Amino acid sequence: MTLTTNTMGTIDFTSSDERIGELLQRQHEIADLSALGALAEWDQHTAMPGEAGEARMHQMATLQGALHERATDPRLGEVLHALNEVVEQPRFTEADRGLVRQSLRSYEQATKLPRTLVEEMERVKVASTEAWITARQRSDFASFAPWLQRTVTLQREVADRFGYKESRYDALLDIYEQGLTTSKLVQLFEPVRTTSKTLLQRIQESGHTVDTSSLYGNFSAKQQEQLCQKILKSIGYDFSRGQMLISAHPFTTSFGSPIDVRLTVRYNERYLPMSLMAALHEGGHGLYEQGVARSLLRTSLAGGASLGVHESESRLWENALGRSESFWQGKYHIVQEVFPEQFGNVDVATFARALNSVQPSLIRVEADEVTYNLHILIRFELEKALINGDITVESLPEQWNAKYREYLGIEPDKDANGVLQDVHWTSGFGYFPTYTLGNLYAAQIFATLRQTFPDLDERLATGDTTFVLDWLREHLYATGAIYQPEEVIRRATGEKPDPQYFVRYLTEKFERVYDLNS
Amino acid sequence: MTLTTNTMGTIDFTSSDERIGELLQRQHEIADLSALGALAEWDQHTAMPGEAGEARMHQMATLQGALHERATDPRLGEVLHALNEVVEQPRFTEADRGLVRQSLRSYEQATKLPRTLVEEMERVKVASTEAWITARQRSDFASFAPWLQRTVTLQREVADRFGYKESRYDALLDIYEQGLTTSKLVQLFEPVRTTSKTLLQRIQESGHTVDTSSLYGNFSAKQQEQLCQKILKSIGYDFSRGQMLISAHPFTTSFGSPIDVRLTVRYNERYLPMSLMAALHEGGHGLYEQGVARSLLRTSLAGGASLGVHESESRLWENALGRSESFWQGKYHIVQEVFPEQFGNVDVATFARALNSVQPSLIRVEADEVTYNLHILIRFELEKALINGDITVESLPEQWNAKYREYLGIEPDKDANGVLQDVHWTSGFGYFPTYTLGNLYAAQIFATLRQTFPDLDERLATGDTTFVLDWLREHLYATGAIYQPEEVIRRATGEKPDPQYFVRYLTEKFERVYDLNS
Repeated sequence: MTLTTNTMGTIDFTSSDERIGELLQRQHEIADLSALGALAEWDQHTAMPGEAGEARMHQMATLQGALHERATDPRLGEVLHALNEVVEQPRFTEADRGLVRQSLRSYEQATKLPRTLVEEMERVKVASTEAWITARQRSDFASFAPWLQRTVTLQREVADRFGYKESRYDALLDIYEQGLTTSKLVQLFEPVRTTSKTLLQRIQESGHTVDTSSLYGNFSAKQQEQLCQKILKSIGYDFSRGQMLISAHPFTTSFGSPIDVRLTVRYNERYLPMSLMAALHEGGHGLYEQGVARSLLRTSLAGGASLGVHESESRLWENALGRSESFWQGKYHIVQEVFPEQFGNVDVATFARALNSVQPSLIRVEADEVTYNLHILIRFELEKALINGDITVESLPEQWNAKYREYLGIEPDKDANGVLQDVHWTSGFGYFPTYTLGNLYAAQIFATLRQTFPDLDERLATGDTTFVLDWLREHLYATGAIYQPEEVIRRATGEKPDPQYFVRYLTEKFERVYDLNS
Repeated sequence: MTLTTNTMGTIDFTSSDERIGELLQRQHEIADLSALGALAEWDQHTAMPGEAGEARMHQMATLQGALHERATDPRLGEVLHALNEVVEQPRFTEADRGLVRQSLRSYEQATKLPRTLVEEMERVKVASTEAWITARQRSDFASFAPWLQRTVTLQREVADRFGYKESRYDALLDIYEQGLTTSKLVQLFEPVRTTSKTLLQRIQESGHTVDTSSLYGNFSAKQQEQLCQKILKSIGYDFSRGQMLISAHPFTTSFGSPIDVRLTVRYNERYLPMSLMAALHEGGHGLYEQGVARSLLRTSLAGGASLGVHESESRLWENALGRSESFWQGKYHIVQEVFPEQFGNVDVATFARALNSVQPSLIRVEADEVTYNLHILIRFELEKALINGDITVESLPEQWNAKYREYLGIEPDKDANGVLQDVHWTSGFGYFPTYTLGNLYAAQIFATLRQTFPDLDERLATGDTTFVLDWLREHLYATGAIYQPEEVIRRATGEKPDPQYFVRYLTEKFERVYDLNS
């Protein structure tokens, strides 16, 4: 696949300008050291021996200290402020502008935090992750609670140092998605909440069901690994610039996009979608990072425009495409080839429909598209309350279970399947809402794809997804983080983010899957 | 296994002393960043996607720059020089003295090299490694030669900056084994050369042979992996502080000894010793690093005393123990359990004897104990000539093949099995001779073990190796790099290094194996 965007002229830096040159040199150094940190985290989650945690904790703290030193160098501030005065002039490129904007934001954030705090946060993150792994295995929230408390305390300090207008939690939201606030989120989430609850109720009242039996059975991890690799290859994930391993919590990371982008999945030998849909989800993240223009390598622009935009790509490939019948009409033969006994007698419509079964469940990452955002709403409400001081860490399991009763009508059997299921709170708060943002963006981008390719379903049914990837690379991936999230969505779809696309997508899809209008 | 050495009182630092405290803090930072570099190298050799080399090259260079900055900080020099004046006073420990000695040596070395040179060396090393991997696969020396030439040029510059008395090459030898010179090596190696050549001739003239047929057959990589893991566990390698992966060239590395020490092996599905003996060899390195006292974690003392001493432990476990009949009397059942078809009808004496077949061969890492040091002598003579300017890079394949004809009477069929077989020259010169030093030290330590445990063979035959490991930990491993190589050998064996132990070991062993005195 050729990147047509190289002709756009926006993704190259004016490195002939002396100050852009100096900024790039500093960015390269920061990007290189950050990549080593990402590698150490990847190792921690995929390979690190159980007793090595103490050494890793110190390594990460030291690295964060070295990074912080570079990120707060007063000379960097001088260069950035000087560039900021002139970068709108026509002799600079969009990449230059993005670089200055992003770097200035990072510089201003970094200078608000003392180095000791940054190192302490890193130590707590590594130790907290180790504690979480054990606590989750044993379903023992009490052993994790002290670490969570330390993270809450540190995150409050970060919020106070960054500053905010309305609530402390807003300061944290802004870290992950620039400009995001609680009140904006409440507005965006309201139609999502209503639509999800209404659809769930209509599905439950319809009495209609989806046959999911084909997804349960015996699926060896070895064969699932083959399947995931084949599916990833077939959507265009490039293994010569990537790798797929196993971890408790699937994730995608990069040690230099677009040339080193790796991901993990996990296997449940009784239930196939656990790995298959994780591969498509992480694959979506991976395609985004592998699609970034090579000219952005070793800069902070070589990545997603924001967590929300990043999540839109994982959800697009996992759900909008990866749970559609037309997608599987083109790729189901891969599943049948790897698991001939299990799927030889299951037709593609049955398989694709099974992937869209709606059922309130305990685990977020296994949730269907209708209930998924309710899982996010629960986390959003809890972490907001935690940071703003309205609830205590100790009360979390109880609060968690109460919210699950309220939103989904079910309650976790144990904390491992409840409040301990996600790794995110080992590093901070404000991340979860970006998942729902991602769903909203994905629906809007998918609507644009449908409009651009009126024969989308027919083309997908041939097994081809290259035309989708090429379009996404050209209109979204190649520019990395040059533009801000809203601008990225506007450039790709022609409109600013609008939750109504998701409302329509979800309603139409599940009215069809569950035959709700009959 | 309990470390009795913790009671020795020598392996704790006097961190209550302010300057030792400051030195330790600086050492920790350097150790942490170095560990991340080691992790990145480990990843490069075991997992990194093929296209990611460019990013990794920059990451390593940037990291080396950051490390060099810390290693040459004038404040570090001040602290070290002040400590050096007082550290012999009785209120300081042996660990303090080792730390100051080692740190001062590193500081003096580092301050002799400009940062740009250090970064350039790292870039060349990473790129050269990638070039070597491809060149070896294609047996294409010409594509590797330009990288080798750059390394030679850089190494000469290093030698000139470090300084030397007799020859440029001496400056490089000193990096790996303090105080080592060409003339010392020639003296040490002379009895080795004579003994090896004489023994080889006697074996060839005897007409006696060793039946190695049991080692050839069908051995699946999966089963070999199991076998290597079991053997490693049985000698005391701790997987909760380690990991075993695959790489083209087996190696051991550490990201924080003693708690994160990892190793690699490689599999030949037609010939078992390729993996099994690599596991014992790397396992020996691993046991050493895992046996370092935990109080040395995050300092430059948490590792081997020198490359020569390190190699003594790999050779001790691989050869003196791992190719002895008594060792296999105790552990052969593991081999039979994993490969019942292949070894069910082979007795332990036949198996152990097969591991000691002597045969001039092309590949160093597969060489027997009699010819191994001839491989090292060849490399020693070639790299010495290369650095001193007596031969050119272009002439290396020809020179290599001529030496193999002269020393071993055979000639490589292709450069992949000749001059391209080892990765070492991608990073520098002066390393190979430490392998022969390791063989000499190993024989001397093994003689001490025999003296300490008169019933050594009987105890090994029960399958127990814990008593050997415990002794080694107490007398050699725990102190890490607190003492200098010669002192380490003296403390463990009561004598300074003496090549006659190796001469006797080799002669007695192979007179027995090949029944040369009958």
